[in-house]
Parts: sequence; structure tokens; C-alpha cells
Amino acid sequence: MPYPNPRSVLVALATPFALPAFLVLLLTISAAWGEDTNMDTTGYTPRAVILIIGDGMDDQQISIARNYLKGAAGKLLLDTLPVRSAVGVLTVEDTVDGRPIYVADSANTATSIATGAITSRGRIATTAGSDRDLVTIIELASAAGYRTGIVTTASVTDATPAAFASHVNFRLCENPDAMVDIHYKSVYLGGCPDDLKANGGPGSIAEQLASSGIDVILGGGRKHFEPQIEGGSVPVSTLARQRGFQLLTTKQELSRVSPPGRVLGLFSAGSMPVRLQGQNGRQAEEAEPSLLNHLHDYIGDVTLPAPMSCEPNPEANTVPSLREMTDVALDLLAHDNNRGFFLMVESASIDKQAHERKPCGSIGEMEQLDEALASALAYADKHPRTLVIVTADHSQAAQLVPAQSLFAAYPVPIYSPGMTARIQTPEGSLLVVNYATNNFSHEEHTGANVPLFSNGEGQGRVPAYAQQPELFTIMREYLSL
Amino acid sequence: MPYPNPRSVLVALATPFALPAFLVLLLTISAAWGEDTNMDTTGYTPRAVILIIGDGMDDQQISIARNYLKGAAGKLLLDTLPVRSAVGVLTVEDTVDGRPIYVADSANTATSIATGAITSRGRIATTAGSDRDLVTIIELASAAGYRTGIVTTASVTDATPAAFASHVNFRLCENPDAMVDIHYKSVYLGGCPDDLKANGGPGSIAEQLASSGIDVILGGGRKHFEPQIEGGSVPVSTLARQRGFQLLTTKQELSRVSPPGRVLGLFSAGSMPVRLQGQNGRQAEEAEPSLLNHLHDYIGDVTLPAPMSCEPNPEANTVPSLREMTDVALDLLAHDNNRGFFLMVESASIDKQAHERKPCGSIGEMEQLDEALASALAYADKHPRTLVIVTADHSQAAQLVPAQSLFAAYPVPIYSPGMTARIQTPEGSLLVVNYATNNFSHEEHTGANVPLFSNGEGQGRVPAYAQQPELFTIMREYLSL
Repeated sequence: MPYPNPRSVLVALATPFALPAFLVLLLTISAAWGEDTNMDTTGYTPRAVILIIGDGMDDQQISIARNYLKGAAGKLLLDTLPVRSAVGVLTVEDTVDGRPIYVADSANTATSIATGAITSRGRIATTAGSDRDLVTIIELASAAGYRTGIVTTASVTDATPAAFASHVNFRLCENPDAMVDIHYKSVYLGGCPDDLKANGGPGSIAEQLASSGIDVILGGGRKHFEPQIEGGSVPVSTLARQRGFQLLTTKQELSRVSPPGRVLGLFSAGSMPVRLQGQNGRQAEEAEPSLLNHLHDYIGDVTLPAPMSCEPNPEANTVPSLREMTDVALDLLAHDNNRGFFLMVESASIDKQAHERKPCGSIGEMEQLDEALASALAYADKHPRTLVIVTADHSQAAQLVPAQSLFAAYPVPIYSPGMTARIQTPEGSLLVVNYATNNFSHEEHTGANVPLFSNGEGQGRVPAYAQQPELFTIMREYLSL
Repeated sequence: MPYPNPRSVLVALATPFALPAFLVLLLTISAAWGEDTNMDTTGYTPRAVILIIGDGMDDQQISIARNYLKGAAGKLLLDTLPVRSAVGVLTVEDTVDGRPIYVADSANTATSIATGAITSRGRIATTAGSDRDLVTIIELASAAGYRTGIVTTASVTDATPAAFASHVNFRLCENPDAMVDIHYKSVYLGGCPDDLKANGGPGSIAEQLASSGIDVILGGGRKHFEPQIEGGSVPVSTLARQRGFQLLTTKQELSRVSPPGRVLGLFSAGSMPVRLQGQNGRQAEEAEPSLLNHLHDYIGDVTLPAPMSCEPNPEANTVPSLREMTDVALDLLAHDNNRGFFLMVESASIDKQAHERKPCGSIGEMEQLDEALASALAYADKHPRTLVIVTADHSQAAQLVPAQSLFAAYPVPIYSPGMTARIQTPEGSLLVVNYATNNFSHEEHTGANVPLFSNGEGQGRVPAYAQQPELFTIMREYLSL
């Protein structure tokens, strides 16, 4: 929003066409006042949006984490936010005017949040069916002079961060070597031939990030910056350096960063190690019915997975925490910045650990999110025009189920047909997490609407029920984009 | 809240003790102003609370119902309410100072809402371990001169309604014949010997309701009013008549009721028939793996349950709808009433149908809740001091899972280890509901925090995150109890 320079008022008054020019000027000033009059002396009202996404952070995950981390009667920092509502997730088939799909993935949901569009699973800021690129909030903010940042515990090329700053038709096109015929163990998964530079496309996600105008990118995914750029002879990381990024790869380097500067921090090869794990690395396990019970559900007995505690994952110390990355990002973005910024912070492995049936992992990543939120709120306390939004992209498989069945009076073995983890909580109770959406190595997502939170700045802006694309609109309007 | 009569001001000023009396009067007026100055001429500010409980109505159930009834991009009436937040559910072991239990049942959750206390599963308005009676919001409201009502699609003696107006240590003590040694198919389930009148207790739930001061009780559960009262020779229904209730048993009788009067309507023997059912009565079913797939998860193939539609349950027409019952209750409670009322409305079979793995049943009962909400909001529109709260008591087993697995690219049969229903929605997509919390005939509840909604009257009263007992406090304070 341009602020009329006082000198131009004088110039306008001094010319022969003073009156009409002055009227135009007055209208400009009025329009500016109509929006916000709390400008600083530099001519801008600095504003910031900090968007925190808990991947797969549905109400089951929140409740599991609350019980473990704070006790049933305790509260996460999330629980103390003044605005809490719900977001409906929308997905469509990959055709023009496709029918609704009721369960999303992180690619299409991040696209909804980042661009305001509804698209199909697997797509990164591109339209369903027609494969057009969608302008993202980071691109809009950057063009309007805001600084921008991405912080994630996943690879920075993973679906959620990718959808804020790149455009491909398939989420796994993360680096120049993964653009066509992407396979996993001889299974064809997809590809992005139309997105190759050779075909007039923007290239892989890593190349797009390296060439982007983003100021801060922190997370995992170093391996995606090692391949050579398409049609060139340098790795993607070199392209990033050439485009002005300072490259970091260790926690120590991160701790020494100071503004100003543009930074690309890649602290692990892929996803960053998570904070917590099951005792001795255990995850959810199947119950073991006796031979008799195999013959009939109502006879014999069953051995349930032994209770376990959660323990620190020793690998977690090798990388910075989500909070440490968030703190550095806020420092860099806010330094000597009279315009403001947009920052997306993702706790990615709430979802990834749930896919792998590792409830302790999800709990630790919920804790990481709550800590990053503390940083965001501390920043917002000092900088009043900061909208902090917390949400999830989609819901997940994990369910908090009873330690003792509601039907325990019946003398039959009652157990989950899926896999469960029976976790001893610090307050001395047994917390049982069930994973039973499929028989595959990875659980499914689910289709429930997800939570939406904000700080006081969201009051009157964040509705009681939003559809996911509306989040884009709320943030865009807040930054007057 | 007494309103100072203007005449008494004059009297106060005319007496020899004018000043002290006037000061007292001023304080009275100030206190009254501090609370609410919109009084009517009768001396009271009529106020009403309409509390709508969707039993088991978590965000999965809401999302499933939204998709089916309104389409993915549509909105339930629920979704349009101006206040939407979350409630944490709290349960403890059945001992004094017992440890937390992370998954609740409807008895202890209804007790929390109705009394503000945290108790153990199965208890009806009594304390965990010590078995003391807890005063309920209906008892408080009634004592303060408010009319009170209960409307439910369950038996009126079922846990949720029971906890608002009766006190026993075990939810199944619904009638005089079910007070000790309650068995189901030779399995001992529990009993309430201490609650027998012979032992100085208040008797069964049905007897307590029949003797209560509640003005309107509508729902199912006729069979619980047929046994003879403990120590007497008349059925409970006769006791209810003797205590001033007009008894109704048919939809036609309900439609002819007009105020004034106290009414007990019992429209079915037990729970009322639900509105929707699966095609030909189908429910969720197991996938059928081929012989090869039985040998190993990654080979062979699987036959998924055939898609189905939902269809009307012909029995539903024999009973009034939740909305029809709510409308009659509102008429009776509001008629010529300058004090106000408390009404609890429960859509009970969202949960009951989910226990039985019948997603169409739950969807129809979500629709019933949305319709009852429409009645409540229409009433509140005409009577501004009406707080409408909608919430669930606990979350449930049902999960909305993908129609096509996220991992469909892998050439292996992927399916739920539990039971699924694949429902064709009116908008032409496939909605898949998964039930996989146990191998028993009935699914478990789950432990996620549940949604909380209110009309505008809840703004500033309903917090972003409440613990379930706080709902009692919000309603009590609203009615100045």
C-alpha cells in the first residue's frame, strides 16, 4: 500500500492543476486510511503472517499429545489460543470439473492453503485436470515486497512446503533426477515430464526453490539439492548459492546465522529425525490371539502388545529443533524490515510417524509444533500486527482407544484388528493408540475436518467454519495482497 | 433476579430512614444492572438454555454427514453457527482421587456436562469411588423456578438424559427390575443395590424421572416404565401420572399436545427407530481376501464390500422426529413462562449406530440433530436471551477413509482390517467409512476432544477450549443458578 509522500501534497497544491490533483490525492489518502492508519515512519504498516501447519494434526493427535505431554487435565499451548474453529478439507478428481474425493493428501491440501484453489491428490500448486500453475501466497507476498520463509521438519521439497513456492503435477518430482518415471522398488509412482525445463516447464521442486525469491528455507532434504540441475553441470545447491542463498547444513551453522541475508538450511538428507520414539524403537503392534481365538472370536484369549514408554530419539540431537529453526527464521525475516513477512512453519512428522504407526513419534512432533507456536506468539506479542494461524492439512489414521474395552464385562478377548501401542503416560495411566485403516506398511489419511486456531489477531478474521481454500483468502487479505 | 419496583423507591425516599434504605436500594439496582437490565414487566428476565448433544458426534461423524447430506462443498446448519470450538473430555477411575482414563462413556460425560464433576465410566450423576449424588443443572434450574425438559431419541432412561435428572452408580439401572445383578446373556454387567429405595436410595432411573419435577420428557424407553415400582403395586408409568405427567405413547398424541401441562412421551419400547439405514439393511462389512492373500498380505486379491446407498428406515415413520419432539418441548416450556427454561435435546443414535457399524444410521441421526438445531435457532431468533449450545459427549470409532488408497500405485491388495461401508453419495462420489477399533459385536468410543458450538449468545461465554465440566458452569452462570 503506497503512502502519499508529504512533498507530493505541496507539489500538487503548487501546480496550475492543483485542485483536481489534490482531490485525487485526498481520495488516495482516504483509501489508505480506510485500510489501516497505524503506519510507521517509513511509509509502510509492517504486517506478518505466521502460518503453522501440523501435518495430519487432527483432534485425535492433539488429544493423544495433550494426555501424554500435559496430562488429561492439562493444556497444550495450542489449547490456550483465543480462536479455535474448524476447516473443511476439499479435494477433487484429477479432471476438469472432477467430482469430490473425500480424503485428501498433503499436496492438494497445501495447495488449497497456499493458493485458494481446490485440486487433486498429489498436485503441487497446479490445477486438477488442466495442470495450470496456481499463484501462491508466497509468490504474491514476495511480489508485494514482503519477505517470505519456509520452515519444516520434512524435506523442504516435501508436499506441504513445496506447494507454497513451486508448481509440478506430482509431489515426488522433488529433484532433477526424479522428474520422469519415478519408481519405488520397481513400482511406477508417477512423473512430471511436462514440468521439465526442456519441455518449457519450471523444473523440479528443488530447482524451483533454489531459483525462488524466498528469503529463508530451513528443513531437511539435502539429498534433493545434490543432483545436477537439468541441462546444467552444477548441483542444485550451487544454483541456490548463485541465486544468493547462504547454505547451511548443521545445527551449529544455524546457531551462528545472523541477519541480514537469505538462507537455505538443509539439516538432514530427507525428513529430519523426530524427537521421540517408542521404547527400544517399538511402534504399534498386532495383538496375538491364541490358537483357540483364531478358530472363533469368542473363545481363547489374546496377548496385547506390552505397555511401553516413549523415549528420546538420540538422532534428534543432530539437527536443530523446529523451534530453533523458527527463531532463526523470525530473526532473519523481521530484521530491519518495515514491510513485513509471510512465514510457513510445518511440523511434518506428526503425519509421517502416524503413517508408520509410531505414536511416540507423533507426540514428540506435536510438542515441537507447540514450541514453535510459543516462538510465534512471543514474536506476535512484540509485533502486534502479526496474524498467527495454526491448522492441520488433513486428518489421520491414529485413534485414541480405551485401555479397557467398554465391553470388558463380556468374557471374550476384545482387541483391535489393526495395530495398537499401549503407552504408559507420565501421569500413570495407559494411553492406547490404534492404527487400523489398512493392512499396508503405511496407514491412510482420514477425511474429518481439521482444527483451526489463531491468536487474537484472528478474531473477526477466522470464521467458525472455513473451507480450506478460505485460509488463503484470510492471509491474503491480512497482507492486503 | 428481583426487579426493584419503582414504587418502593418512592416509599424508601419518604420514610425517616430514607438514606440507608435508598443506599440499599441503589446497591440492589446496581447489582441488577450489572447482570442484565433487559427485564420484562413481570420482574424476571426470562432466559433459556437449549443444550443439544450429539452422542458420539465427533468431527469424523460431522464430516461424513456433511459429505453425504450436503456435499463436500456444502454446509450443515451446524457449520453455520457463529461459535465453534472444542471440549476436552475428562474421565477417572472409579476410586477417590483415581487416575485419568483417556476414553469415556456417555454416562460419565453426561455427568460432567450436567453436574460439572469428573466421574468414572458408567456413573449417573454420582461421584467416582465415594458414590455421592451430584446436583444437576436440571435440579438447580428447577429449584430456581425455571421449567426443564429432556428430549432424546434414546430411552429417556439412557445414560445421557439420565445424568441430567437422576443418580445411580450404574447406567443400566434403568427400571425397578434392573437394580441388582443385571445380566445380559448370563454375563454379569453390574447393579445398584445401594440405590434401592429399600436401602435408602432414590430407586431406579425410571422411578426417579417419574418422581421428578421435570416438565417435559420425550423419547423412547416405554419398557422401563412398565415394571412395578419398588415396594409398590403400580407400574412406574402410573407413578408418573400420579406425579402430574400426562402420558403419551404415539406420534399422533404428541401432535395434539398443547400447553400448559407436564408431559412424559414414550414413543418406543427402547431406543427410537433411526431415520436411515444401509441399502437392504446392510452395514459395514469385512473385505474378503482371496486364498493367496490369506497366505501373504502382498499377493492375491481382495473383494471389497459392494458400494451401497442409504435408504429410509420404514420404521422411522412410526415415531416422531427429533425435531417434532423438540418443537413440542419448546412450546410447552415457553408457554406463559416469564422465568425461562433449560432444555436438553439428544440425538442419541449417532453413537448407537456407530457402535453397530451402521454409517447410514449415524448420518440420518446427524440430520435429525441438524433439524432440531433449526428449531432451537428459530426459537432463539424470537427470544434473544436463549443460549443454544451444541456439543458431543465423546468421540467414536467411525473414520472416513479413502475410496482409493493413498498407496494404490502399489500392486497389492490394500484394505481395512476392520469393517467398511462404501456409500454412494448423492453427489456421485464414494464415501468409505471404516470401523476397526475392535473385533467385538460393538465398536469402542475414542478419546479425541469433541466439537462445541453455540449461537451468538455464546460469544464471550463459550471459550476456544473448554474442559467438559466447564459446560455446566457456562450454563449455570447463564441462568444465574
